[in-house]
Amino acid sequence: MPSQFDPPSGTRDFLAADVEQREHAFGVVRSVAARYGFEPLQTPAFERLDVLLGKYGDEGDKLVFKILRRGEHEASGEADLALRYDMTVPLARVAAAYGSQLPVPYKRYVIGPVWRADRPGKDRYREFVQCDLDTLGSASVLADAETLCAQHDALAELGLRDFRILLNSRRVLAGLLEAFGVPPEIGTQVLISLDKLDKMTPEDVAAELTERGLDAAQASEIVGTLTAADATERLRVALKQSDTGAAGLDEVDTVLALVADQIPAERIAFTPRMVRGLSYYTGPIWELVAPGVAGSIGSGGRYDHLIEALGGPDVPGTGASIGVERILAMLPGGESRPRLDVAVTVLGPEFAGRAFGLAAAARGAGLRSSVYLGGSGKLGRQLKWASDSGARWCLICGDRETRAGIVTVRDMVSGEQDEVPAAELAGYLAAAAARSGGQRS
Amino acid sequence: MPSQFDPPSGTRDFLAADVEQREHAFGVVRSVAARYGFEPLQTPAFERLDVLLGKYGDEGDKLVFKILRRGEHEASGEADLALRYDMTVPLARVAAAYGSQLPVPYKRYVIGPVWRADRPGKDRYREFVQCDLDTLGSASVLADAETLCAQHDALAELGLRDFRILLNSRRVLAGLLEAFGVPPEIGTQVLISLDKLDKMTPEDVAAELTERGLDAAQASEIVGTLTAADATERLRVALKQSDTGAAGLDEVDTVLALVADQIPAERIAFTPRMVRGLSYYTGPIWELVAPGVAGSIGSGGRYDHLIEALGGPDVPGTGASIGVERILAMLPGGESRPRLDVAVTVLGPEFAGRAFGLAAAARGAGLRSSVYLGGSGKLGRQLKWASDSGARWCLICGDRETRAGIVTVRDMVSGEQDEVPAAELAGYLAAAAARSGGQRS
Repeated sequence: MPSQFDPPSGTRDFLAADVEQREHAFGVVRSVAARYGFEPLQTPAFERLDVLLGKYGDEGDKLVFKILRRGEHEASGEADLALRYDMTVPLARVAAAYGSQLPVPYKRYVIGPVWRADRPGKDRYREFVQCDLDTLGSASVLADAETLCAQHDALAELGLRDFRILLNSRRVLAGLLEAFGVPPEIGTQVLISLDKLDKMTPEDVAAELTERGLDAAQASEIVGTLTAADATERLRVALKQSDTGAAGLDEVDTVLALVADQIPAERIAFTPRMVRGLSYYTGPIWELVAPGVAGSIGSGGRYDHLIEALGGPDVPGTGASIGVERILAMLPGGESRPRLDVAVTVLGPEFAGRAFGLAAAARGAGLRSSVYLGGSGKLGRQLKWASDSGARWCLICGDRETRAGIVTVRDMVSGEQDEVPAAELAGYLAAAAARSGGQRS
Repeated sequence: MPSQFDPPSGTRDFLAADVEQREHAFGVVRSVAARYGFEPLQTPAFERLDVLLGKYGDEGDKLVFKILRRGEHEASGEADLALRYDMTVPLARVAAAYGSQLPVPYKRYVIGPVWRADRPGKDRYREFVQCDLDTLGSASVLADAETLCAQHDALAELGLRDFRILLNSRRVLAGLLEAFGVPPEIGTQVLISLDKLDKMTPEDVAAELTERGLDAAQASEIVGTLTAADATERLRVALKQSDTGAAGLDEVDTVLALVADQIPAERIAFTPRMVRGLSYYTGPIWELVAPGVAGSIGSGGRYDHLIEALGGPDVPGTGASIGVERILAMLPGGESRPRLDVAVTVLGPEFAGRAFGLAAAARGAGLRSSVYLGGSGKLGRQLKWASDSGARWCLICGDRETRAGIVTVRDMVSGEQDEVPAAELAGYLAAAAARSGGQRS
């Protein structure tokens, strides 16, 4: 039930366990990206409105969060800034702004929130993290294959096993249209219909194709070829009839050969009917899917004119997106690690100074530690706090311990207690932590 | 010179070296906070407008970035959301929303951007990172002292040596007003004037105090006491005349005693004339300053009624802010680490598959590696790329190497080359990296 204390519609608060799970996943992606030589980039949350508008089509423009002008201009009701909608427009701006300072090729990764005023729904948020790897300034198919390997490795290191990469090429699609004699002016529409072969019957797709202007024989030939048991083989034959188609096939086969040692063969397949909606792709395109997950968990492709179209320099580019939000939803729930390793009791104000010192000693051993901050002087209450905080050890230091220069270390799992000379506490805890295999902060 | 490709006024793009320096610093703060048992929290970039407005005073409200309503409501020119202005209002909302799910006390840290439509200037940004540690639900002075220790440790681990903590208490200030017979209705104004003793002459401050309604004798007595060589001692005597003053002194002395083993004595001092502008503090207050840095590099204090005033539950609280942006500006510039450890040449399309395998082997050894993605087949050009990318090793694999099943490993520092059996490459590179002390990704 929504309350006045909920975060705004379509956004989320992340408490400790969620933050830890998310940051762990982002850390995995960062580490894989760095290992491939991608470097990080961070741009502001908002851009000037004119930088964003007109880049995402009319529908996209409507989903941009616009920021009202300030001060005396606020009353105008006009916006001059807008929250970033993706990571590609900021990349184009950065490529234009820092061109000569950037390495060639410029390989960058970015992990950060974007904002879209979409209708919120299950797994659809207005603030969500996008994670992109892009290479600007290389026209080589090696860059496409490298990006794909990095994306694959990131998913594998995140713990995904059961996913597949659908690989195709824009040139294959163009060759397919040529091979079947589709008039260029309806090519895009035809591809959009063919992309529906997963969801619609072949007959319905063929009917849609005739509505789009193909004659019935053409429509049923294309659909028949694409849905045949040996569709890929038949298409290979058809594609070789056109220069573009042959070039596309060659591109796909090159990518497959380059990634063969790194991506298991059962995880990647040439999928000639996979279209991807976005018209700016110019070369290889791919989509990552997982059983039981609607939509893709990652995608990518070559976009040799996009950066210029977005206001940047005229450089070839290729990139991949990792659907981290969807992937996070697939991973086992974040198991909250205990808040504390070592809880320190304070059995009266006169022991507070010593308690501070004991907590510091525990931290010196790399453990997470805090003194009791509540109002009760009772040991039972404080032990309950220690237990609630998940602490593995509780340090007890009262009159007797203070006089003897020791501290009582209670193992909260076994209930056993040791008396440890105060000066040896850090070493004792470090050794105990090493034995218990505890994670150091 | 501003260009159309600059980020919006008051915001910054962070390229690789900056991102690495910043993330390193944030990582240090995260690690210290976790060691003290603070847990992470992340809230959305924007909140509902009504959650933010009226919380920061009229001046603050003007600096809030407001987000225009969307769709059919956009034309109204009205806002319904706003970018977060600080981390405390979201904390109050979270405390209200998740009260019973949160531990008691709730110790949380947060590191993230906030947005203020301030006039941009040197080291004053419209998007900047705030870093807060707060403890809700403990009325104990131990929580104040613990927060202060965590803040101190974070600065020390960030590499700051030369900073000082000015410690005071709101009750000391209240006691000071009582002790000098200042009428309660002008108390706040008097404190604001006294806070200027750093910047104005004692005479000017005394004159301002008489303008505020003190008689001349009172004004000069207060200013005289606070600026005397033995000011602190004289104030201690004066404060003991009032219950509030005595309680404030006791609070300050307790904090000093608790932190004594962890914060070097020369770094912290009772500073009775330090006021801090914000009226919501109720107990100990502190400010961190560094020579040559205008303003503070950190601050904190107890605010027992603030969370309720901000719309949250009625819980005591204490917290500290680390001025990470100012501190980052004080640290030595981010030295860019090389983009790559291992650069792999591709001396022709026929070698691309092997090059991919060699780069993968290097990554398997934990090294950052990429194949050459440019258009030149010339070794010289590719070696220049390897050198520009900062790679320590360049792998060369042409006809001869392929036939012999080896790879030539060139040390880019010494210029020496080794021929290594391809199957042994990962081990060779791992050993070489261990010898060179290189950082693994």
